[in-house]
Amino acid sequence: MPETIAAMIAAMAQAARRAAAEIARADAATKARALERLADALLQHKPQIQAENEKDLAAARAAGLAPSLIDRLALSDAVFASMARGLREVARWPDPVGRLGPETLRPNGLRVRRMRIPLGVIGIIYESRPNVTVDAAGLCLKAGNAVILRGGSEALNSNRALAAVIAAALAASGLPPEAVQVVPTRERAAVLALLKQEGAIDLIIPRGGEELIRFVVEHARIPILKHDRGVCHVYVDEGADLAQAEAICFNAKVQRPGVCNAMETLLVHGAEAPRFLPRMAQRFAAAHVELRGCPETLRWVPGAVPATERDWGAEYLDLVLAVKVVADIEAAMAHIAAYGSHHTEAIVTRDPGRAQRFLREVDASVVLVNASTRFNDGGELGLGAEIGISTSKLHAYGPMGVDELTTSKFVVFGEGQVRS
Amino acid sequence: MPETIAAMIAAMAQAARRAAAEIARADAATKARALERLADALLQHKPQIQAENEKDLAAARAAGLAPSLIDRLALSDAVFASMARGLREVARWPDPVGRLGPETLRPNGLRVRRMRIPLGVIGIIYESRPNVTVDAAGLCLKAGNAVILRGGSEALNSNRALAAVIAAALAASGLPPEAVQVVPTRERAAVLALLKQEGAIDLIIPRGGEELIRFVVEHARIPILKHDRGVCHVYVDEGADLAQAEAICFNAKVQRPGVCNAMETLLVHGAEAPRFLPRMAQRFAAAHVELRGCPETLRWVPGAVPATERDWGAEYLDLVLAVKVVADIEAAMAHIAAYGSHHTEAIVTRDPGRAQRFLREVDASVVLVNASTRFNDGGELGLGAEIGISTSKLHAYGPMGVDELTTSKFVVFGEGQVRS
Repeated sequence: MPETIAAMIAAMAQAARRAAAEIARADAATKARALERLADALLQHKPQIQAENEKDLAAARAAGLAPSLIDRLALSDAVFASMARGLREVARWPDPVGRLGPETLRPNGLRVRRMRIPLGVIGIIYESRPNVTVDAAGLCLKAGNAVILRGGSEALNSNRALAAVIAAALAASGLPPEAVQVVPTRERAAVLALLKQEGAIDLIIPRGGEELIRFVVEHARIPILKHDRGVCHVYVDEGADLAQAEAICFNAKVQRPGVCNAMETLLVHGAEAPRFLPRMAQRFAAAHVELRGCPETLRWVPGAVPATERDWGAEYLDLVLAVKVVADIEAAMAHIAAYGSHHTEAIVTRDPGRAQRFLREVDASVVLVNASTRFNDGGELGLGAEIGISTSKLHAYGPMGVDELTTSKFVVFGEGQVRS
Repeated sequence: MPETIAAMIAAMAQAARRAAAEIARADAATKARALERLADALLQHKPQIQAENEKDLAAARAAGLAPSLIDRLALSDAVFASMARGLREVARWPDPVGRLGPETLRPNGLRVRRMRIPLGVIGIIYESRPNVTVDAAGLCLKAGNAVILRGGSEALNSNRALAAVIAAALAASGLPPEAVQVVPTRERAAVLALLKQEGAIDLIIPRGGEELIRFVVEHARIPILKHDRGVCHVYVDEGADLAQAEAICFNAKVQRPGVCNAMETLLVHGAEAPRFLPRMAQRFAAAHVELRGCPETLRWVPGAVPATERDWGAEYLDLVLAVKVVADIEAAMAHIAAYGSHHTEAIVTRDPGRAQRFLREVDASVVLVNASTRFNDGGELGLGAEIGISTSKLHAYGPMGVDELTTSKFVVFGEGQVRS
């Protein structure tokens, strides 16, 4: 069985390779029309897709999956509307393929530019949400790539139904249907086989929990861009506008606690702790946020749970927050360097010098001054839709939009130049 | 012994990690002064370094190494002058660290920019030439990175002597000497240990033969940028300026046959073969280039050796050239897609449409019109010095200069914005 699966994945990868060459040459208008057509087709085939989705939901309920997981799995009417809207937005976005950078004229007369080109074949390994299948297909297609999608096993019926609609829309647009393929099996061997397609797949993007990321890092023989966990901090500096700090911290923790750009640890300058922490704690208590504090925090928030070493660096993804009082910005940055995950870090300050130091010295994909960590998002930062948030430093550090799904080559115009 | 080596490499990586944080914060003037000081120190300590280099040369001669390898190993006066000149050039080059991209103002008032930042800790695994130790150290330092260098085992004495001078120059400039470290052992276990330092090393750059690259791809658990082989083609199009084509092809093959951007296969349009090939063959014969031709080539160059399947895709790195007559540009591009290595591809043509098609459709890190493949080089394309030529598509495809040794993060300025 695993050998059959390896052969199947190899065949899919070869088909994707051939499709990638075609998609790379497709003009912008053809790709945009295909995306619009796909948006129409999804809405048109909603009943059939939802019937397949219902099978996944029934199995998930029977297996006793957590309600939050079942919720992520559901392809509701609202999710359909959002998928279609996303595709139409991506369709209208400027096409990056073939875009030329500025020209450099060399002393020997050579004219040198960089040209944006597709990456080739991208493999995406993700969990749960079947809408990722459509979002990722749309972004990869726009950037001129072929894509192989391996979604969560609990969403297989939904993903297969979506894949059939996507393939039909591609074919109707004159594009190769193999440009978007869904791995049609729940077997883990398929993931392993994907990770070994050196030469056929150019990039693997794993999105998911720690176990998935570790498995991919361990076994991949092709480049990967990790979309890893977010242990995000907000540091409330000495002299900060405390009303502003309160609003930012509340938003960063409470607005959507289950996502990677939510705050997991709050750092407060010692001079502000007596005034800031009691009020902030009251507001968090009203929102049912459990606080886990350092000894100094407990002085000002007696109701907090004493934090242990495991709380620093924890990604709760829940209404739980670690809180630490620090001596100064150096201590805050040292804590972030020791426990952060290079995802999103924010400072609330009125001091321009310390704002600049924090921006420059903190090593994270997005660093913010006086704004919520929740803004680490491709849409919010102006990239349009995003395929996720890379915590790998190479190629794309932070949110990845359409442009980040391309690379560039050098194009050189000469009139017979030779090297001496 | 391997365990001791693993512990040593882990300690080196941790020291590099700490040094990287310091180097990342160093200002441009300090780094530039350190590079100038290193250039001075190299020339000053030339006698001691050359004495150590002589030990490597004597061992290489005793071991019967090929003269070309012994030549690469030698740190002659000319190589010293070139190393020092290279460092001074890099010192004067604009410092990329902290450079800000254009500002995007979001509808909610957030101001978003990208800031260039160092990659962190880079591991470079290379063969032979000890001057790479100095060139790579200078480029990594300029880009604010720490670097661990693992050179060829036959150059260990030379590399250790260079490392001592580099460390002293760093310390004298107020920078951490651990920012540049040379692996002080010939054991292969050290390479394996380097490849496993996930979390401590951010990027591995392997430069070398196929066996080295394969080993690194197989074992690395950290991102790699391959500097792989170059199977480079020149396609002489129908209607090309044949005198120009002759000059370009001669230069691409003969000027320096042992390097990765030399031409390995010549493709000629059928309509030009009768006029072009006999003259070109004569010129190659005078330069002792052995031709291996397809049947159609043999019609016009009776002295050529019949090519076998193994000749297409061969990287000779020598005065040997495969020659094939093709029906048209489609056949040329199909041959390149099948046998090329995504390194450097050139067309000689007078037709602007076909020039554009070739530039756009050929998937290689550098694509040229009417110029020699030998121009795939960071210096020649205006990047300043280069650390090598990446054949990986992610992050940097083609020559890698100082800028390509950095990445970027997002920096965001707000006035209390929260997400709704």
